[in-house]
Amino acid sequence: MPQLIHTMLDPFSRRIRLLIGELGIDADVIEEKPWERREELLHLNPTGLLPIFVEDDHTIIPGIESVADYLEETRGLPVGRNLLGKTALERAETRRLVAWFDVKFHREVSRLILTEKVERRFAAPGRGGGATNMNAVRAGLHNIRAHLDYIGALAEHRNWLSGDDLTQADLAAAAHLSCLDYLGDVPWGANTAAKDWYQRIKSRPSFRPLLADHIRGMPPPRTYADLDF
Amino acid sequence: MPQLIHTMLDPFSRRIRLLIGELGIDADVIEEKPWERREELLHLNPTGLLPIFVEDDHTIIPGIESVADYLEETRGLPVGRNLLGKTALERAETRRLVAWFDVKFHREVSRLILTEKVERRFAAPGRGGGATNMNAVRAGLHNIRAHLDYIGALAEHRNWLSGDDLTQADLAAAAHLSCLDYLGDVPWGANTAAKDWYQRIKSRPSFRPLLADHIRGMPPPRTYADLDF
Repeated sequence: MPQLIHTMLDPFSRRIRLLIGELGIDADVIEEKPWERREELLHLNPTGLLPIFVEDDHTIIPGIESVADYLEETRGLPVGRNLLGKTALERAETRRLVAWFDVKFHREVSRLILTEKVERRFAAPGRGGGATNMNAVRAGLHNIRAHLDYIGALAEHRNWLSGDDLTQADLAAAAHLSCLDYLGDVPWGANTAAKDWYQRIKSRPSFRPLLADHIRGMPPPRTYADLDF
Repeated sequence: MPQLIHTMLDPFSRRIRLLIGELGIDADVIEEKPWERREELLHLNPTGLLPIFVEDDHTIIPGIESVADYLEETRGLPVGRNLLGKTALERAETRRLVAWFDVKFHREVSRLILTEKVERRFAAPGRGGGATNMNAVRAGLHNIRAHLDYIGALAEHRNWLSGDDLTQADLAAAAHLSCLDYLGDVPWGANTAAKDWYQRIKSRPSFRPLLADHIRGMPPPRTYADLDF
């Protein structure tokens, strides 16, 4: 069986966990702790980043940018499933929004909070571990509000974030937000349309494995797995 | 005629300028100065980033992640040109390397140097303008050497960076390096294989418009446009 190597509170790993659920891909989902910087992980992906998809014949597909399209092409296209969009224009909008979350939201919100609250705690000193910089956390918590408004504005005018159909744009946005939701850091009361959209995607079967995540010593708030949050 | 809105020393704009050359796309290439933060630019792309491709019917394709695939799909695929790779595995390798340069090389090298040497100089105070942080420049100049070695190692084992054929991986790498080369900041003597690869791609007709770039008050070194550098 193919393997998906991931880590729990990583938005990029989570997008692919959602994608394999949506595309109905059977894979062994294997947890890695990237801050341990295992030598073997660097052989699989020289950036040391997750997710990594490994085929039965040991073909390695490393990193979110490769895996996301590779799975669509090899598992989605042959059976007509598609989470990028049906036309070139729809796919362009999906890719624009995926970059919005993976680049802009990541830089302004999720990387700030996840680095300070997760990596600082679990990584060894000298490898990213240490005291939490609360100014960085506060900046992330401030910036998330404008992003929730953007998600709400999209969700009010469209069925899903990039148009009529669920796409990787929704998976990317939900992947980032779900990491922060695990930490109790999403002010859902701030935008009703964004919350409604998240409630819809959170209810999908593909989301269940994410809601079952539990990190030792860092349990999620009760509302994390609650579909009526 | 479609428009490509770009800015001269931007690696992402440069990749698409190379791509339209390779795919033989006729487009009006229009220069924008993103640090002026024109209101109109934010209407075209809410991130304020370039490049932006505008079709004759005013359809807007904003941002590198959208434009790169959109042009392949609408201009490349119909006529059998292809700069992503022929198989899903080749495309995965292309996307891995594009991300290597657009994310990792950008963070470790080109963003550091270009922010400090270009944006600081041309942007207004309070909008990114100000004194150059020489420590950031020095960090970029230090980090570029390991990346040249990586390019050299790939080029020694493959015809082009991602395999037998020229792909967007080569365009991405060359786009970043060409910005730094305009500033005289690429130590070509440090890796012969990397220099040989760059010489090959620099000699392609698609590269000519980039070699003609000239920024007022910031001329390139003589070797920038020289194919025998």
